[in-house]
Amino acid sequence: MKDLKKVTRSQGKDRTIIKIGNVEVGTDSIIIAGPCAVESEHQIVTIAKQVKNAGANLLRGNIFKPRTSPYSFSGVQTEGFKYLKEAKLQTGLPIVTEVIDLRDIEKVIEYSDVIQVGARNMQNYPLLRELGKIDKPILLKRGMMATIYEWLCCAEYICLEGNENVILCERGIRTFETYTRNTLDISSISALKEITHLPVISDPSHGSGKRELILPLCLSSIMAGCDGVMIEVHENPDASMSDASQTISLEEFRNITDKIRKTWEYRKTL
Amino acid sequence: MKDLKKVTRSQGKDRTIIKIGNVEVGTDSIIIAGPCAVESEHQIVTIAKQVKNAGANLLRGNIFKPRTSPYSFSGVQTEGFKYLKEAKLQTGLPIVTEVIDLRDIEKVIEYSDVIQVGARNMQNYPLLRELGKIDKPILLKRGMMATIYEWLCCAEYICLEGNENVILCERGIRTFETYTRNTLDISSISALKEITHLPVISDPSHGSGKRELILPLCLSSIMAGCDGVMIEVHENPDASMSDASQTISLEEFRNITDKIRKTWEYRKTL
Amino acid sequence: MKDLKKVTRSQGKDRTIIKIGNVEVGTDSIIIAGPCAVESEHQIVTIAKQVKNAGANLLRGNIFKPRTSPYSFSGVQTEGFKYLKEAKLQTGLPIVTEVIDLRDIEKVIEYSDVIQVGARNMQNYPLLRELGKIDKPILLKRGMMATIYEWLCCAEYICLEGNENVILCERGIRTFETYTRNTLDISSISALKEITHLPVISDPSHGSGKRELILPLCLSSIMAGCDGVMIEVHENPDASMSDASQTISLEEFRNITDKIRKTWEYRKTL
Amino acid sequence: MKDLKKVTRSQGKDRTIIKIGNVEVGTDSIIIAGPCAVESEHQIVTIAKQVKNAGANLLRGNIFKPRTSPYSFSGVQTEGFKYLKEAKLQTGLPIVTEVIDLRDIEKVIEYSDVIQVGARNMQNYPLLRELGKIDKPILLKRGMMATIYEWLCCAEYICLEGNENVILCERGIRTFETYTRNTLDISSISALKEITHLPVISDPSHGSGKRELILPLCLSSIMAGCDGVMIEVHENPDASMSDASQTISLEEFRNITDKIRKTWEYRKTL
Repeated sequence: MKDLKKVTRSQGKDRTIIKIGNVEVGTDSIIIAGPCAVESEHQIVTIAKQVKNAGANLLRGNIFKPRTSPYSFSGVQTEGFKYLKEAKLQTGLPIVTEVIDLRDIEKVIEYSDVIQVGARNMQNYPLLRELGKIDKPILLKRGMMATIYEWLCCAEYICLEGNENVILCERGIRTFETYTRNTLDISSISALKEITHLPVISDPSHGSGKRELILPLCLSSIMAGCDGVMIEVHENPDASMSDASQTISLEEFRNITDKIRKTWEYRKTL
Repeated sequence: MKDLKKVTRSQGKDRTIIKIGNVEVGTDSIIIAGPCAVESEHQIVTIAKQVKNAGANLLRGNIFKPRTSPYSFSGVQTEGFKYLKEAKLQTGLPIVTEVIDLRDIEKVIEYSDVIQVGARNMQNYPLLRELGKIDKPILLKRGMMATIYEWLCCAEYICLEGNENVILCERGIRTFETYTRNTLDISSISALKEITHLPVISDPSHGSGKRELILPLCLSSIMAGCDGVMIEVHENPDASMSDASQTISLEEFRNITDKIRKTWEYRKTL
Repeated sequence: MKDLKKVTRSQGKDRTIIKIGNVEVGTDSIIIAGPCAVESEHQIVTIAKQVKNAGANLLRGNIFKPRTSPYSFSGVQTEGFKYLKEAKLQTGLPIVTEVIDLRDIEKVIEYSDVIQVGARNMQNYPLLRELGKIDKPILLKRGMMATIYEWLCCAEYICLEGNENVILCERGIRTFETYTRNTLDISSISALKEITHLPVISDPSHGSGKRELILPLCLSSIMAGCDGVMIEVHENPDASMSDASQTISLEEFRNITDKIRKTWEYRKTL
Repeated sequence: MKDLKKVTRSQGKDRTIIKIGNVEVGTDSIIIAGPCAVESEHQIVTIAKQVKNAGANLLRGNIFKPRTSPYSFSGVQTEGFKYLKEAKLQTGLPIVTEVIDLRDIEKVIEYSDVIQVGARNMQNYPLLRELGKIDKPILLKRGMMATIYEWLCCAEYICLEGNENVILCERGIRTFETYTRNTLDISSISALKEITHLPVISDPSHGSGKRELILPLCLSSIMAGCDGVMIEVHENPDASMSDASQTISLEEFRNITDKIRKTWEYRKTL
């Protein structure tokens, strides 16, 4: 970690606080919720309202979906910007959405509050450099095969260009295990809280690929030190256009947010 | 998991409770502590007294140490049985120690309360079968590159011979990450609590290889559902004859047990 | 592999032949050689002449270098185009060079004969789609942790846009092994020759990270069925600005090309 | 590798030659063939005769089969010793068979010529130590998750007790790839030929899990420097009691041995 200059705590900075809407990432306990993919205006507005009622702080929803197979649903594309706008208008929830093509950055800035870089693009350096020049928080997902050092290097690429509002998001690494989709590396959260001043978010939905593990892995991630969790929620999970098996219903979401909030409160007492 | 008959919850059994001394593994919150390796009678007795005072329920200490290099310290060998005996005599703490040679089983039974099978021996089927015929609880560590299914198969090997008192111990898997020694697979704890009725213990000392991660990973493991934690503690960690970097001092141990106990209490309130 | 439509042999196509300069990739035995990074006009022209004399068919040399750390040498950038041009002018060798930013595609087309997509960009879908619209062969490196299926999906992304001249390049995958830099997955070469009609190249320089393994791994790759090898060669390997330990000297290169050619001839006799 | 004293070439020894029957492992080109599991006297005798006719030098056949699930076929057990004896009597082929329980060593010595240690037992140190005290060659398979260093340490354990006739067998490592059963690490063969004086054998049957890859991976392994190959052959592969998909028929075996022998001859000309 020695060659890193911007992202490590050894640089004197203890903690980066990022103000988004009326929350402070790095101080407050953040729940980001929403569907994996935006499917329609009706879908995203409905989910937005309900996750807001259940206590979510930010709305997630991708309109560009990088997919392994070119034959899979790849998102509603630019059509989706107005859906996201409507969801924000009706709920006030700040929007987190992924950019995969640097030519879309300007539009994404216009319609979102946090710009996500997905696992496949973690080392897309031209994209990182462009995002380093803008004035929006970046949520940088860990690459499927990235070491902690490599991941922090990517955050450094962004910070070096001037944008120091980077949020790290652990989303599972690839191992030989097949029971879970990926192996959520919860140790990396604890390790990052030692090494860096940047906020760290946990994504147990992608990290495990299994609905029934979302709650325990959220609580684990909190005790490991995370500043937020990101959860895939859908009106009708089994009909979800992507990642159905790891998506929970609105009802399940309501049931778990209370335990999540309570656990953050508990953590403060230690 | 479908071919497993003994270890899965689908067999109607919800939870295996294993009585050891005056605790019940599977019901009570278990802290197993002690040095990686027994080095002398003085060492193990001193540590035993202090971890007892700090609230440990069981004492760990290996006298046989499987080591990658034949030139590394491989334990005090059979000499150590009397040291373990003395430690138990003076503290009343039940003893957890590893067996690596099936010819030692009889002696290990005589001097210990829980018999550990280490990661390297997880698939040593003749050893598992012999341990299945005895009347002592077995602590079965996960192999460094074992899937959850393969691990449960090994527990099944033991149970099939008649001994159903098996405790599973997650100790980290091998990945490409180099910052931590292994990647503690905390998701596997949550997954196991869904699949099996056997108790599950977490070992963040081997799992991370880093002192500063022991506390957060203990707390994470608890929220993931574990029934106990196993922690390497030494009078003078840096002088420890093995695994120094992942071993904490007696003072650190006292500081963290309180938070660990409190977190188990907190978990019950959810 | 069932959802793949363009890249699999089951589509009736047995073998894709790609004409580059006066060689046919897919029929001829191809040696691609050159430095990891272009450092100066003098350097690339000197190496180009010598690898040509030693029998190389194509010249490799990157002017854009995606580097883990933002503080590492990242290539001579656009300055390097004219160096590549000069090297081609003086030797006639077709040029293979990497593109990492889709805004550079037009220039890269102008100055190169084969456009390389590096491991980190294997799943950079907007880049792949743009490369699918052009009329130049693409050399698609395998991602560090990509399965064979995921890799072929990326080739499919390119082919779907119209450009079916894709060459696959195995460059090692990430495993727990530390003796070699990566684990060159030679089985994947044999597997690909069963599955796809696209040509397959092996890169033992990145694949192993060790000079002394280049020759045996080239010969192994040939017997596994590869259509070409890509080798890092430098005038003064230890002074190489990147990847020194895996780079061989011009003299070593001359010594091994003969054995490589001979082994391809031998393979034809089987 | 620095702490290794017995197995490294830096100790002055260039090459260990092990005489078995009328072949010399380390000098001659060795083909070990036979079924994964011995099923009956008829089966093993029939296969033995035919693989001998096709040019095999040693017969493989396990009577003890370590299996992931306790419900899988685990071999004919001690019953099989007489079948192996009969196969040797009728063909003169030396026998390679696996020992998994150190209490069976004496019997295994009596009935076999090379004693195999399987991947799961690579780090079974009491077993290794006992095998170090006997006067029979040991074929030591690489553990599924072992680094080259760890593997060599296990060979060192055997040699240290006095038995320096150890043959290393690469059989594939566990990665995230799912197309092949394991990833045959052919680079490890080249690396081992640099590091150690011990003979190295390649097992593409377990290494790939796919019949159609056996031939190319044998030839690749030869060019990487291996001293022998081990191939699973069965009268009726699809009826094989274990590992059917990676087992080839006697006819296929005859077809490939010629190419294998020829490739070893070719290698000598380089």
